[in-house]
Amino acid sequence: MSAKVITITREFGSGGRTIGRKVAEALGYSFYDWNLVDKIATETGFAKEFIEENGEEQGRFSAVFTSSSFGFNLNEQLFEAQSRVVLNLAEQGNCVIVGRCADYLLRNDPNTMSCFIYANHDARKNRVINEYGETDVPIEKRLKDKDKRRKAHYEYFTSRKWGKSFYYDLCIDTGRIPIDTAVDVIVEAAKNYTPGLRNTDGD
Amino acid sequence: MSAKVITITREFGSGGRTIGRKVAEALGYSFYDWNLVDKIATETGFAKEFIEENGEEQGRFSAVFTSSSFGFNLNEQLFEAQSRVVLNLAEQGNCVIVGRCADYLLRNDPNTMSCFIYANHDARKNRVINEYGETDVPIEKRLKDKDKRRKAHYEYFTSRKWGKSFYYDLCIDTGRIPIDTAVDVIVEAAKNYTPGLRNTDGD
Repeated sequence: MSAKVITITREFGSGGRTIGRKVAEALGYSFYDWNLVDKIATETGFAKEFIEENGEEQGRFSAVFTSSSFGFNLNEQLFEAQSRVVLNLAEQGNCVIVGRCADYLLRNDPNTMSCFIYANHDARKNRVINEYGETDVPIEKRLKDKDKRRKAHYEYFTSRKWGKSFYYDLCIDTGRIPIDTAVDVIVEAAKNYTPGLRNTDGD
Repeated sequence: MSAKVITITREFGSGGRTIGRKVAEALGYSFYDWNLVDKIATETGFAKEFIEENGEEQGRFSAVFTSSSFGFNLNEQLFEAQSRVVLNLAEQGNCVIVGRCADYLLRNDPNTMSCFIYANHDARKNRVINEYGETDVPIEKRLKDKDKRRKAHYEYFTSRKWGKSFYYDLCIDTGRIPIDTAVDVIVEAAKNYTPGLRNTDGD
């Protein structure tokens, strides 16, 4: 029995996206990552730039993140809309979904295997520079900023603590376990997956 | 490059002990679990019963757990003593150590791979009954009591949160990933282990 859907929640620079892509290739599954932005834009009408800025992280201008005086909140509307897109994709099965709080959205689906990928600061700094290059902003600040915004977004929309193992079937530290080993490990686990209840100890 | 030491921290009934034994067999490593109690008793002079009751869990009589009016605390002395035993074993390398806060004690050792094993309540209840049998105490109460005491012991001596993924290289939910797959996954990760810094995001 295999996991029908694999979700990858990850720290910035941990290699989670690359792992997700390679796992999808190995299993012959569809892979949803940045391409989700186009899909969400088409299906919801939100501008791509707005989704990129707010779909996975707390917006840079925190006022956007709080309820507006008009009685609605664009970020919450975006979350609702992209959640529907994620749930529809999961319904079709045989896919790997990176980010978008998919672990939380699919927490009660016995056929979804959820993974959390993280690594120490130095490993992540090196990977970010190698993968995305240097910018005017020092790498230390980029990492800190991304970590803070991603965590805030996740905790705001899920009411869960970032990085609690109990929410996941598999958590892997890529600072010590190489990316390709992480891929092998996830593929092996997915192939032997037993649909079952989620651990609720962390809730 | 392989991990020289593998620590297994686990929820009661998750199969962590069995996994540790099988991983040790697969790698040809020494295995330290209950046999540690004898070793600690011999090397420290503490009674076996006292170590069994307090070496991994908060004692049933919580007064024992607080500082005594004599200015010393037996539980803390036991923790110190068993920590020395664990660190000595780790120094020799090529071993799997279950429990005893070994993940915490070896947190700065780049050659130690730390694993956390957990599972949902139902899976653990079934495993406890199959492995240890029924007792007069209802299984639900046994599980709750053990979870509470183990967590309290861990958090008291490590000042860490129980179950935070960042402390571990690998976290596995055996409610969904079968025991034998968990063994394969740990062995694969251990064989490809890259000594490196621990993730400190959780500290």
